[in-house]
Amino acid sequence: MKLSTRNQLPGTVVSVVTGEAMAVVKVKLDGGDQVITSSITKDAVADLGLTEGAAVTVLVKSTEVALAVE
Amino acid sequence: MKLSTRNQLPGTVVSVVTGEAMAVVKVKLDGGDQVITSSITKDAVADLGLTEGAAVTVLVKSTEVALAVE
Amino acid sequence: MKLSTRNQLPGTVVSVVTGEAMAVVKVKLDGGDQVITSSITKDAVADLGLTEGAAVTVLVKSTEVALAVE
Amino acid sequence: MKLSTRNQLPGTVVSVVTGEAMAVVKVKLDGGDQVITSSITKDAVADLGLTEGAAVTVLVKSTEVALAVE
Amino acid sequence: MKLSTRNQLPGTVVSVVTGEAMAVVKVKLDGGDQVITSSITKDAVADLGLTEGAAVTVLVKSTEVALAVE
Amino acid sequence: MKLSTRNQLPGTVVSVVTGEAMAVVKVKLDGGDQVITSSITKDAVADLGLTEGAAVTVLVKSTEVALAVE
Repeated sequence: MKLSTRNQLPGTVVSVVTGEAMAVVKVKLDGGDQVITSSITKDAVADLGLTEGAAVTVLVKSTEVALAVE
Repeated sequence: MKLSTRNQLPGTVVSVVTGEAMAVVKVKLDGGDQVITSSITKDAVADLGLTEGAAVTVLVKSTEVALAVE
Repeated sequence: MKLSTRNQLPGTVVSVVTGEAMAVVKVKLDGGDQVITSSITKDAVADLGLTEGAAVTVLVKSTEVALAVE
Repeated sequence: MKLSTRNQLPGTVVSVVTGEAMAVVKVKLDGGDQVITSSITKDAVADLGLTEGAAVTVLVKSTEVALAVE
Repeated sequence: MKLSTRNQLPGTVVSVVTGEAMAVVKVKLDGGDQVITSSITKDAVADLGLTEGAAVTVLVKSTEVALAVE
Repeated sequence: MKLSTRNQLPGTVVSVVTGEAMAVVKVKLDGGDQVITSSITKDAVADLGLTEGAAVTVLVKSTEVALAVE
Protein backbone atom coordinates (compact mmCIF):
# COMPACT_ATOMS: atom_id res chain seq x y z
CA MET A 1 0.00 0.00 0.00
CA LYS A 2 1.29 3.44 -0.95
CA LEU A 3 -0.12 6.52 0.82
CA SER A 4 -0.64 10.13 -0.28
CA THR A 5 0.38 10.98 3.28
CA ARG A 6 3.74 12.70 2.77
CA ASN A 7 5.18 12.27 6.24
CA GLN A 8 6.05 8.74 7.33
CA LEU A 9 8.56 8.33 10.16
CA PRO A 10 9.59 4.95 11.61
CA GLY A 11 9.76 4.53 15.38
CA THR A 12 8.99 2.43 18.44
CA VAL A 13 6.07 2.73 20.87
CA VAL A 14 7.30 3.88 24.29
CA SER A 15 3.96 4.29 26.09
CA VAL A 16 0.22 3.78 25.66
CA VAL A 17 -2.35 5.53 27.87
CA THR A 18 -5.88 4.38 27.21
CA GLY A 19 -9.06 6.19 28.24
CA GLU A 20 -12.71 5.25 27.69
CA ALA A 21 -12.88 6.55 24.12
CA MET A 22 -9.40 7.79 23.12
CA ALA A 23 -5.80 6.77 23.74
CA VAL A 24 -2.48 8.61 23.68
CA VAL A 25 0.48 6.71 22.22
CA LYS A 26 4.08 7.96 22.44
CA VAL A 27 6.58 6.86 19.79
CA LYS A 28 10.36 7.35 19.85
CA LEU A 29 11.56 8.07 16.33
CA ASP A 30 14.34 5.88 15.00
CA GLY A 31 17.83 7.38 14.96
CA GLY A 32 17.32 10.00 17.64
CA ASP A 33 15.65 10.97 20.89
CA GLN A 34 12.57 12.67 19.46
CA VAL A 35 9.30 11.39 20.92
CA ILE A 36 6.08 11.86 18.94
CA THR A 37 2.64 11.92 20.60
CA SER A 38 -0.36 10.46 18.76
CA SER A 39 -4.02 10.68 19.85
CA ILE A 40 -6.03 7.85 18.34
CA THR A 41 -9.12 5.85 19.30
CA LYS A 42 -8.96 3.10 21.92
CA ASP A 43 -10.25 0.80 19.16
CA ALA A 44 -7.25 1.56 16.94
CA VAL A 45 -4.84 0.70 19.77
CA ALA A 46 -6.55 -2.67 20.21
CA ASP A 47 -6.85 -3.31 16.48
CA LEU A 48 -3.14 -2.67 15.83
CA GLY A 49 -2.07 -4.42 19.04
CA LEU A 50 -0.03 -1.40 20.12
CA THR A 51 2.07 -2.01 23.21
CA GLU A 52 5.42 -0.75 24.46
CA GLY A 53 8.18 -1.85 22.10
CA ALA A 54 6.01 -2.20 18.99
CA ALA A 55 7.56 -1.02 15.71
CA VAL A 56 5.30 1.57 14.07
CA THR A 57 5.32 4.23 11.39
CA VAL A 58 4.13 7.71 12.35
CA LEU A 59 1.87 9.21 9.65
CA VAL A 60 1.10 12.93 9.25
CA LYS A 61 -0.72 14.57 6.32
CA SER A 62 1.13 17.65 5.05
CA THR A 63 -1.91 19.89 5.58
CA GLU A 64 -1.55 19.18 9.34
CA VAL A 65 2.04 20.44 9.56
CA ALA A 66 2.58 24.01 10.77
CA LEU A 67 5.96 25.76 10.97
CA ALA A 68 7.52 28.16 13.45
CA VAL A 69 10.54 30.46 13.28
CA GLU A 70 12.34 32.18 16.13
CA MET B 1 5.56 31.08 24.12
CA LYS B 2 4.72 27.51 25.12
CA LEU B 3 2.39 25.43 22.93
CA SER B 4 -0.09 22.64 23.67
CA THR B 5 1.13 21.18 20.36
CA ARG B 6 2.97 18.03 21.49
CA ASN B 7 5.16 17.52 18.44
CA GLN B 8 7.87 20.07 17.79
CA LEU B 9 10.80 19.01 15.60
CA PRO B 10 13.66 21.33 14.60
CA GLY B 11 14.83 21.40 11.00
CA THR B 12 15.90 23.41 7.97
CA VAL B 13 13.83 24.47 4.95
CA VAL B 14 15.03 22.67 1.80
CA SER B 15 12.41 23.86 -0.69
CA VAL B 16 9.44 26.18 -1.04
CA VAL B 17 6.89 25.82 -3.86
CA THR B 18 4.33 28.61 -3.92
CA GLY B 19 0.98 28.56 -5.71
CA GLU B 20 -1.72 31.23 -5.91
CA ALA B 21 -3.29 30.38 -2.56
CA MET B 22 -1.21 27.66 -0.90
CA ALA B 23 2.47 26.70 -0.67
CA VAL B 24 4.33 23.47 0.01
CA VAL B 25 7.44 23.72 2.19
CA LYS B 26 9.88 20.84 2.69
CA VAL B 27 11.95 20.71 5.87
CA LYS B 28 14.89 18.39 6.58
CA LEU B 29 14.80 17.38 10.24
CA ASP B 30 17.94 17.96 12.29
CA GLY B 31 20.10 14.93 13.01
CA GLY B 32 18.94 12.78 10.12
CA ASP B 33 17.79 12.58 6.52
CA GLN B 34 14.04 12.69 7.15
CA VAL B 35 12.24 15.36 5.11
CA ILE B 36 8.87 16.66 6.30
CA THR B 37 6.31 18.23 3.93
CA SER B 38 4.12 21.09 5.16
CA SER B 39 1.17 22.66 3.29
CA ILE B 40 0.57 26.20 4.50
CA THR B 41 -0.83 29.41 3.00
CA LYS B 42 1.23 31.56 0.64
CA ASP B 43 0.70 34.35 3.19
CA ALA B 44 2.36 32.31 5.95
CA VAL B 45 5.43 31.70 3.77
CA ALA B 46 5.75 35.44 3.16
CA ASP B 47 5.02 36.37 6.77
CA LEU B 48 7.68 34.02 8.17
CA GLY B 49 10.14 34.81 5.37
CA LEU B 50 10.57 31.11 4.60
CA THR B 51 13.32 30.42 2.08
CA GLU B 52 15.77 27.58 1.52
CA GLY B 53 18.12 27.29 4.48
CA ALA B 54 15.82 28.86 7.07
CA ALA B 55 15.83 27.26 10.51
CA VAL B 56 12.28 26.25 11.48
CA THR B 57 10.38 24.10 13.94
CA VAL B 58 7.87 21.62 12.53
CA LEU B 59 4.63 21.60 14.59
CA VAL B 60 2.05 18.78 14.59
CA LYS B 61 -0.93 18.46 16.94
CA SER B 62 -1.18 14.92 18.41
CA THR B 63 -4.73 14.46 17.09
CA GLU B 64 -3.26 14.68 13.57
CA VAL B 65 -0.82 11.79 14.05
CA ALA B 66 -1.89 8.36 12.78
CA LEU B 67 0.13 5.16 13.22
CA ALA B 68 0.78 2.16 10.99
CA VAL B 69 2.14 -1.31 11.69
CA GLU B 70 3.40 -3.87 9.19
CA MET C 1 0.39 -2.40 6.38
CA LYS C 2 -2.36 -1.84 8.95
CA LEU C 3 -3.41 1.73 9.81
CA SER C 4 -4.80 3.31 12.99
CA THR C 5 -6.91 5.38 10.58
CA ARG C 6 -10.43 4.08 11.27
CA ASN C 7 -12.09 5.15 8.04
CA GLN C 8 -11.01 3.41 4.85
CA LEU C 9 -13.40 3.49 1.90
CA PRO C 10 -12.63 1.96 -1.52
CA GLY C 11 -13.37 3.96 -4.66
CA THR C 12 -12.27 5.13 -8.09
CA VAL C 13 -10.68 8.45 -9.07
CA VAL C 14 -13.09 10.48 -11.22
CA SER C 15 -11.10 13.72 -11.57
CA VAL C 16 -7.77 15.31 -10.70
CA VAL C 17 -7.26 19.09 -10.71
CA THR C 18 -3.66 20.08 -10.11
CA GLY C 19 -2.41 23.51 -9.03
CA GLU C 20 1.12 24.75 -8.37
CA ALA C 21 1.32 23.36 -4.83
CA MET C 22 -1.89 21.44 -4.12
CA ALA C 23 -4.29 19.20 -6.03
CA VAL C 24 -7.94 18.26 -5.62
CA VAL C 25 -8.86 14.64 -6.36
CA LYS C 26 -12.45 13.40 -6.57
CA VAL C 27 -13.19 9.75 -5.82
CA LYS C 28 -16.46 7.90 -6.43
CA LEU C 29 -17.03 5.44 -3.61
CA ASP C 30 -17.67 1.81 -4.59
CA GLY C 31 -21.28 0.63 -4.42
CA GLY C 32 -22.98 3.99 -4.70
CA ASP C 33 -22.95 7.46 -6.21
CA GLN C 34 -21.18 9.27 -3.36
CA VAL C 35 -18.20 11.34 -4.50
CA ILE C 36 -15.47 12.23 -1.99
CA THR C 37 -13.17 15.24 -2.43
CA SER C 38 -9.55 15.04 -1.25
CA SER C 39 -7.04 17.92 -1.11
CA ILE C 40 -3.48 16.59 -1.25
CA THR C 41 -0.15 17.86 -2.50
CA LYS C 42 0.72 17.90 -6.20
CA ASP C 43 3.67 15.68 -5.23
CA ALA C 44 1.37 13.02 -3.78
CA VAL C 45 -0.67 12.91 -7.00
CA ALA C 46 2.51 12.34 -9.01
CA ASP C 47 3.94 9.86 -6.52
CA LEU C 48 0.81 7.69 -6.50
CA GLY C 49 0.23 8.12 -10.24
CA LEU C 50 -3.35 9.26 -9.64
CA THR C 51 -5.35 9.62 -12.84
CA GLU C 52 -9.01 9.15 -13.77
CA GLY C 53 -10.02 5.52 -13.30
CA ALA C 54 -7.40 4.66 -10.66
CA ALA C 55 -8.55 2.40 -7.82
CA VAL C 56 -7.87 4.09 -4.48
CA THR C 57 -8.78 3.87 -0.81
CA VAL C 58 -10.06 7.03 0.87
CA LEU C 59 -8.51 7.48 4.35
CA VAL C 60 -9.95 9.69 7.11
CA LYS C 61 -8.77 9.82 10.73
CA SER C 62 -11.71 9.65 13.17
CA THR C 63 -10.73 12.93 14.85
CA GLU C 64 -11.46 14.65 11.51
CA VAL C 65 -15.05 13.43 11.28
CA ALA C 66 -17.79 15.80 12.46
CA LEU C 67 -21.49 14.95 12.60
CA ALA C 68 -24.67 16.89 11.85
CA VAL C 69 -28.31 16.30 12.70
CA GLU C 70 -31.39 17.97 11.20
CA MET D 1 -27.20 26.15 6.04
CA LYS D 2 -24.73 25.31 3.26
CA LEU D 3 -21.21 24.16 4.19
CA SER D 4 -17.83 24.51 2.46
CA THR D 5 -17.21 21.00 3.78
CA ARG D 6 -17.14 18.92 0.59
CA ASN D 7 -17.86 15.52 2.07
CA GLN D 8 -21.31 14.95 3.53
CA LEU D 9 -22.51 11.36 3.85
CA PRO D 10 -25.88 10.37 5.38
CA GLY D 11 -26.01 7.51 7.88
CA THR D 12 -27.31 6.14 11.16
CA VAL D 13 -25.60 6.04 14.56
CA VAL D 14 -24.80 2.43 15.54
CA SER D 15 -22.84 3.05 18.76
CA VAL D 16 -21.74 5.80 21.13
CA VAL D 17 -18.88 5.31 23.61
CA THR D 18 -18.45 8.25 25.95
CA GLY D 19 -15.37 9.05 28.03
CA GLU D 20 -14.72 11.90 30.46
CA ALA D 21 -13.76 14.40 27.74
CA MET D 22 -14.22 12.76 24.36
CA ALA D 23 -16.63 10.29 22.75
CA VAL D 24 -16.41 7.89 19.83
CA VAL D 25 -19.49 7.58 17.64
CA LYS D 26 -19.90 4.93 14.93
CA VAL D 27 -22.18 5.63 11.97
CA LYS D 28 -23.34 3.14 9.34
CA LEU D 29 -23.51 4.89 5.98
CA ASP D 30 -26.80 4.67 4.07
CA GLY D 31 -26.93 2.21 1.19
CA GLY D 32 -24.12 -0.07 2.28
CA ASP D 33 -22.27 -1.72 5.14
CA GLN D 34 -19.54 0.89 5.60
CA VAL D 35 -19.17 2.09 9.19
CA ILE D 36 -17.53 5.47 9.87
CA THR D 37 -15.88 6.32 13.20
CA SER D 38 -16.04 9.89 14.54
CA SER D 39 -14.20 11.27 17.58
CA ILE D 40 -16.02 14.27 18.99
CA THR D 41 -16.42 15.88 22.40
CA LYS D 42 -18.72 14.43 25.04
CA ASP D 43 -20.48 17.82 24.95
CA ALA D 44 -21.26 17.46 21.24
CA VAL D 45 -22.83 14.04 21.81
CA ALA D 46 -25.09 15.52 24.50
CA ASP D 47 -25.85 18.66 22.50
CA LEU D 48 -26.93 16.71 19.40
CA GLY D 49 -28.68 14.01 21.43
CA LEU D 50 -26.74 11.29 19.64
CA THR D 51 -27.94 7.80 20.50
CA GLU D 52 -28.14 4.51 18.61
CA GLY D 53 -30.49 4.82 15.67
CA ALA D 54 -30.16 8.59 15.22
CA ALA D 55 -30.03 9.84 11.63
CA VAL D 56 -26.87 11.90 11.09
CA THR D 57 -24.71 13.34 8.34
CA VAL D 58 -21.00 12.56 8.44
CA LEU D 59 -18.90 15.67 7.62
CA VAL D 60 -15.26 15.60 6.47
CA LYS D 61 -13.25 18.59 5.16
CA SER D 62 -11.39 17.71 1.94
CA THR D 63 -8.02 18.68 3.45
CA GLU D 64 -8.50 15.79 5.92
CA VAL D 65 -8.88 13.12 3.23
CA ALA D 66 -5.78 11.09 2.31
CA LEU D 67 -5.64 8.47 -0.44
CA ALA D 68 -3.93 5.09 -0.76
CA VAL D 69 -3.18 2.87 -3.73
CA GLU D 70 -2.18 -0.81 -3.72
CA MET E 1 -29.01 21.61 10.80
CA LYS E 2 -27.10 21.26 14.09
CA LEU E 3 -23.37 20.45 14.01
CA SER E 4 -21.08 18.57 16.41
CA THR E 5 -18.52 21.23 15.45
CA ARG E 6 -18.12 23.16 18.71
CA ASN E 7 -16.72 26.39 17.33
CA GLN E 8 -19.01 28.52 15.18
CA LEU E 9 -18.18 32.19 14.81
CA PRO E 10 -20.17 34.63 12.64
CA GLY E 11 -18.34 37.03 10.36
CA THR E 12 -18.03 38.68 6.95
CA VAL E 13 -15.79 37.71 4.02
CA VAL E 14 -13.12 40.37 3.44
CA SER E 15 -11.08 38.68 0.70
CA VAL E 16 -11.00 35.62 -1.54
CA VAL E 17 -7.82 34.47 -3.31
CA THR E 18 -8.42 31.57 -5.66
CA GLY E 19 -5.77 29.24 -7.07
CA GLU E 20 -6.12 26.30 -9.45
CA ALA E 21 -7.14 23.80 -6.75
CA MET E 22 -7.46 25.67 -3.45
CA ALA E 23 -8.60 29.09 -2.26
CA VAL E 24 -7.85 31.24 0.77
CA VAL E 25 -10.77 33.16 2.25
CA LYS E 26 -10.37 35.81 4.96
CA VAL E 27 -13.28 36.50 7.31
CA LYS E 28 -13.60 39.40 9.76
CA LEU E 29 -15.33 38.17 12.90
CA ASP E 30 -18.41 40.10 14.04
CA GLY E 31 -17.93 42.46 16.98
CA GLY E 32 -14.20 42.98 16.65
CA ASP E 33 -11.20 43.33 14.37
CA GLN E 34 -10.09 39.67 14.36
CA VAL E 35 -9.59 38.25 10.87
CA ILE E 36 -9.75 34.47 10.38
CA THR E 37 -8.06 32.71 7.43
CA SER E 38 -9.70 29.64 5.89
CA SER E 39 -8.17 27.34 3.24
CA ILE E 40 -10.90 25.56 1.29
CA THR E 41 -11.29 24.16 -2.22
CA LYS E 42 -11.93 26.41 -5.20
CA ASP E 43 -15.11 24.36 -5.69
CA ALA E 44 -16.39 25.26 -2.22
CA VAL E 45 -15.88 28.98 -2.93
CA ALA E 46 -17.93 28.66 -6.12
CA ASP E 47 -20.58 26.45 -4.52
CA LEU E 48 -21.18 28.84 -1.61
CA GLY E 49 -20.85 31.93 -3.82
CA LEU E 50 -18.26 33.43 -1.50
CA THR E 51 -17.35 37.00 -2.38
CA GLU E 52 -16.29 40.05 -0.40
CA GLY E 53 -19.08 41.13 1.92
CA ALA E 54 -20.75 37.72 2.23
CA ALA E 55 -22.05 36.78 5.69
CA VAL E 56 -20.54 33.47 6.78
CA THR E 57 -20.04 31.32 9.85
CA VAL E 58 -16.50 30.13 10.60
CA LEU E 59 -16.47 26.46 11.67
CA VAL E 60 -13.62 24.76 13.58
CA LYS E 61 -13.71 21.26 15.12
CA SER E 62 -12.39 21.27 18.71
CA THR E 63 -9.72 18.67 17.91
CA GLU E 64 -8.15 21.27 15.58
CA VAL E 65 -7.74 23.92 18.28
CA ALA E 66 -4.32 24.20 19.96
CA LEU E 67 -3.50 26.56 22.82
CA ALA E 68 -0.45 28.65 23.71
CA VAL E 69 0.65 30.38 26.89
CA GLU E 70 3.32 33.06 27.32
CA MET F 1 8.47 32.57 18.14
CA LYS F 2 6.44 33.30 15.01
CA LEU F 3 3.96 30.70 13.71
CA SER F 4 2.69 29.83 10.23
CA THR F 5 -0.63 29.23 12.00
CA ARG F 6 -2.79 32.06 10.64
CA ASN F 7 -5.43 32.16 13.35
CA GLN F 8 -4.34 33.31 16.80
CA LEU F 9 -7.02 34.60 19.15
CA PRO F 10 -6.36 35.74 22.74
CA GLY F 11 -8.65 34.57 25.52
CA THR F 12 -9.07 33.20 29.03
CA VAL F 13 -9.60 29.59 30.15
CA VAL F 14 -13.11 29.16 31.60
CA SER F 15 -13.11 25.38 32.17
CA VAL F 16 -10.92 22.30 31.95
CA VAL F 17 -12.37 18.76 31.86
CA THR F 18 -9.70 16.08 31.98
CA GLY F 19 -10.13 12.43 31.02
CA GLU F 20 -7.64 9.55 31.09
CA ALA F 21 -6.02 10.47 27.76
CA MET F 22 -7.58 13.69 26.48
CA ALA F 23 -8.91 16.93 27.95
CA VAL F 24 -11.42 19.54 26.81
CA VAL F 25 -10.56 23.17 27.53
CA LYS F 26 -12.99 26.04 27.03
CA VAL F 27 -11.65 29.53 26.36
CA LYS F 28 -13.61 32.79 26.34
CA LEU F 29 -12.25 35.04 23.61
CA ASP F 30 -11.21 38.54 24.63
CA GLY F 31 -13.59 41.36 23.75
CA GLY F 32 -16.74 39.30 23.48
CA ASP F 33 -18.78 36.38 24.74
CA GLN F 34 -17.59 33.77 22.25
CA VAL F 35 -16.36 30.56 23.88
CA ILE F 36 -13.95 28.29 21.97
CA THR F 37 -13.62 24.56 22.74
CA SER F 38 -10.22 22.87 22.37
CA SER F 39 -9.51 19.12 22.61
CA ILE F 40 -5.90 18.51 23.62
CA THR F 41 -3.99 15.82 25.49
CA LYS F 42 -4.10 15.58 29.28
CA ASP F 43 -0.30 15.97 29.10
CA ALA F 44 -0.60 19.33 27.35
CA VAL F 45 -2.96 20.64 30.03
CA ALA F 46 -0.44 19.66 32.72
CA ASP F 47 2.55 20.95 30.75
CA LEU F 48 1.01 24.39 30.17
CA GLY F 49 -0.53 24.53 33.65
CA LEU F 50 -3.95 25.29 32.24
CA THR F 51 -6.52 26.17 34.89
CA GLU F 52 -9.56 28.42 35.03
CA GLY F 53 -8.50 32.03 34.55
CA ALA F 54 -5.30 31.34 32.62
CA ALA F 55 -4.52 33.70 29.74
CA VAL F 56 -4.07 31.71 26.53
CA THR F 57 -3.93 32.13 22.78
CA VAL F 58 -6.21 29.92 20.69
CA LEU F 59 -4.37 28.58 17.60
CA VAL F 60 -6.08 27.21 14.47
CA LYS F 61 -4.36 26.29 11.17
CA SER F 62 -6.23 27.75 8.17
CA THR F 63 -6.67 24.32 6.56
CA GLU F 64 -8.87 23.40 9.56
CA VAL F 65 -11.33 26.27 9.07
CA ALA F 66 -14.56 25.50 7.19
CA LEU F 67 -17.20 28.07 6.30
CA ALA F 68 -20.99 28.01 6.21
CA VAL F 69 -23.58 30.30 4.63
CA GLU F 70 -27.31 30.47 5.34
